[in-house]
Amino acid sequence: MTETRESHYTENVQEHLQQVQHLLDKHVLVETVVHQQVLPREDRHELVDKLLHKRHLAELREKLGMLHPADIAYILEALPIEQRLLVWDLVKAERDGEILIEVSDAVRESLIATMSRDELREAAGQLDTDEIADLAPDLPQAVMRDVFKSLSTGEREQLRAAMSYPEDAVGALMDFDMVTIREDVTLEVVSRYLRRFDELPDHTDQLFVVDRDDVFKGVLPLNLLIVNEPNIPVNKLMLTDTIKLHSDDKADQAAQAFERYDLVSAPVVDEDGKLVGRVTVNTVVDFIRAESESDVLNLAGLREEEDIFASVWKSAQNRWLWLALNLCTAFFASRVIGGFENTIEKFVALATLMPIVAGIAGNSANQTTTIIIRSLALGQITQANARRLIGKEFAIAGLNGLVWGGVAGLFAYFLYKSVPLGLVMTSAMLLNLLLGAMVGIFIPLLMQRLGRDPAIGSSVMLTAVTDSGGFFIFLGLATIFLIH
Amino acid sequence: MTETRESHYTENVQEHLQQVQHLLDKHVLVETVVHQQVLPREDRHELVDKLLHKRHLAELREKLGMLHPADIAYILEALPIEQRLLVWDLVKAERDGEILIEVSDAVRESLIATMSRDELREAAGQLDTDEIADLAPDLPQAVMRDVFKSLSTGEREQLRAAMSYPEDAVGALMDFDMVTIREDVTLEVVSRYLRRFDELPDHTDQLFVVDRDDVFKGVLPLNLLIVNEPNIPVNKLMLTDTIKLHSDDKADQAAQAFERYDLVSAPVVDEDGKLVGRVTVNTVVDFIRAESESDVLNLAGLREEEDIFASVWKSAQNRWLWLALNLCTAFFASRVIGGFENTIEKFVALATLMPIVAGIAGNSANQTTTIIIRSLALGQITQANARRLIGKEFAIAGLNGLVWGGVAGLFAYFLYKSVPLGLVMTSAMLLNLLLGAMVGIFIPLLMQRLGRDPAIGSSVMLTAVTDSGGFFIFLGLATIFLIH
Repeated sequence: MTETRESHYTENVQEHLQQVQHLLDKHVLVETVVHQQVLPREDRHELVDKLLHKRHLAELREKLGMLHPADIAYILEALPIEQRLLVWDLVKAERDGEILIEVSDAVRESLIATMSRDELREAAGQLDTDEIADLAPDLPQAVMRDVFKSLSTGEREQLRAAMSYPEDAVGALMDFDMVTIREDVTLEVVSRYLRRFDELPDHTDQLFVVDRDDVFKGVLPLNLLIVNEPNIPVNKLMLTDTIKLHSDDKADQAAQAFERYDLVSAPVVDEDGKLVGRVTVNTVVDFIRAESESDVLNLAGLREEEDIFASVWKSAQNRWLWLALNLCTAFFASRVIGGFENTIEKFVALATLMPIVAGIAGNSANQTTTIIIRSLALGQITQANARRLIGKEFAIAGLNGLVWGGVAGLFAYFLYKSVPLGLVMTSAMLLNLLLGAMVGIFIPLLMQRLGRDPAIGSSVMLTAVTDSGGFFIFLGLATIFLIH
Repeated sequence: MTETRESHYTENVQEHLQQVQHLLDKHVLVETVVHQQVLPREDRHELVDKLLHKRHLAELREKLGMLHPADIAYILEALPIEQRLLVWDLVKAERDGEILIEVSDAVRESLIATMSRDELREAAGQLDTDEIADLAPDLPQAVMRDVFKSLSTGEREQLRAAMSYPEDAVGALMDFDMVTIREDVTLEVVSRYLRRFDELPDHTDQLFVVDRDDVFKGVLPLNLLIVNEPNIPVNKLMLTDTIKLHSDDKADQAAQAFERYDLVSAPVVDEDGKLVGRVTVNTVVDFIRAESESDVLNLAGLREEEDIFASVWKSAQNRWLWLALNLCTAFFASRVIGGFENTIEKFVALATLMPIVAGIAGNSANQTTTIIIRSLALGQITQANARRLIGKEFAIAGLNGLVWGGVAGLFAYFLYKSVPLGLVMTSAMLLNLLLGAMVGIFIPLLMQRLGRDPAIGSSVMLTAVTDSGGFFIFLGLATIFLIH
């Protein structure tokens, strides 16, 4: 495994993608294949053979054979569905497992849909138990039963454990590839023990020291093993005051610990202090990336990661919940305006100015809420400083209200030559910015208090308030002060 | 160093923050201190001594001494400015350097402002050259000159090199703590060489094999050193087909390589193939986090990371560019409505409905642009599939236009009992959603083509188009079909 892993690094994977795409475009009549039906792999190979010129087929297969599984995953994700399935058929069956682990959820689904029960069982058989756990939600139950039967008792226990944790728990990031030693031996003995391995597990930067009952005692960094004399006993060198993760902890706590203390691996212990697994930095990097992507997607109201080549219908559904919510709040705002139809009829300039009041307050509130959500995520908001922060955001909103409200008031005055209109405009901007600051602060704090992720859905509520509120404040003030 | 680093891991840093804050709140009269003036450290200490009850002072100092520099950095960031500076004064001077490296840019500025030239010189003296380069933009020129003079010739060259790279280049992530070996020696010789170190540099998972001219030949993972027999020569085991980074490459390419290939460290070579440094996973994690944070901040139009305790004035300025831009586009949209004042006067219902048309298209366009920006960032958009993707986004916009435009049309019909109004509403929604899809696709593609970051500023342009466009389409159609 290490052999294929360490070789085949590539500097620019996009070049490979282009070459693959070129080979596919030139020599494949993909439109004629119906891939959705589940043919056995051999039959599909035959079909592909017919479609692809033999020489190019060999070329493409060789190219794929040379690539790192992560690069193949990238290429699969960037190919339209028919080409993707062609490439998938050309990948050697014994690499199926490691590639399935690498692709995104959406693309994994499209690949698994074309695989037979035997193929899936074989693919899962190539994986470690923690990887099987990652794959499990996408596998048919029958396949999972077969896989489970094929495991040893110890592996079954690991798989059961790995599958029992929620996605956002440390347990879900955990693997079981740790090397454990006892504290009463010398480095010499440890070195001899390690030399019996063909290779150490990836990301082994430290060995875990446990007692007879598997209770975690400390760690021995390989670093120390290497620079110290062989006759020193482990318990003289091992570090005992290191971080221990708990399998039920939130995954983002583990991520923060890795970031803060620059870890490569960390032990995971259960409530009795027994070592149950480890978390490694590569899993943490993937977790951080996935989190930040889902933040950005959530801000735009996309429920989940989209396969860019998913059908129009499927993609549209991913976006509907958000649009439907927004339509409801827009209808509500529309009815707020409707309540002032008489006022607008008398002074139509109000209709031209009202979107300004709503829009700027929406933007400003969005800035406030972004700052608050970020500070909450970093754990910087405490009881002691919350009041101060809230005061500051209100002060900024007030300042912005005077400055930009003033500018907007002048704009209104110069357009319609009415001092009262200018004053109404400025006051409405000021009040709506303060309203925006209030909801921008309290919605994320409330969501946090309710145990919800404050990043999800804050913006739709925010816009609802600054739109409807802005229209109400502006048209209300106008009705009082401008209409006689 | 390792000693202080490896110890003092903490499970929950927020508890420490609360304890520190408690000590500060109970026993310090901070309001009386003017900290902005630069007193020598001793004078400030005296001042602090006076303010803080001696016993609590000792308690606080001991607590801080026990903490990891990254945890102290966290506490400094979460404290209001006066308390922050008190804590900063209590931190032992010899830890200043490592803490300054850990805090955010905004907070670092506030700390450096209170330090004398001597203190800064001393702090910089505690750091590696690549860390000094990170600090350099915040240090006074005079201090940098002194620091430079104190370095050896080799270090000066490293510092010059590290400072010469733009922030988004691999060179800016690089450090110089690599262990190099020759290929013609045995593992035995390597082991003896390593035992002469007190400790290996952090994140040493592999040794770099170079020739006499420092040309990079390959890597020897510590893993292999450990599991193999001592009499094997390095060139039998070393891996030559590994990833090499180039110091001028974009930093996010390096980050992608680390994510894809699960690296812990990677060599950096210059154009002649000489080894010039290495990048380690902890730097990459920080880079990924910073990138994703700046993405979220940019989406809300915040120019840079804010110190949450910065003054109202400073924070407001951070937010003004965006608000000013939005005000300009809002003024423009307002003038578009102004062009239809006669129409609105005749049919005031239009004023109540027009924000719906603008709002939903804005949301839908935002979803499109998020998908496109994400695909661009992952390098999934190629010449071959671009047309297909564009077609798909238009199809989704069309579908959404019919569905949600239909719903909005019914809403308008039931409110105002006018079939033509309902039809105008539906058509305007459909057209504006298509317009939104167009700009949602082409703005990021254009920005990318121009070599700009597509995530910055896309949304303000998007809203400008969907607002003004929505008002124009809706009121224009109404003028044509409803007003006789």
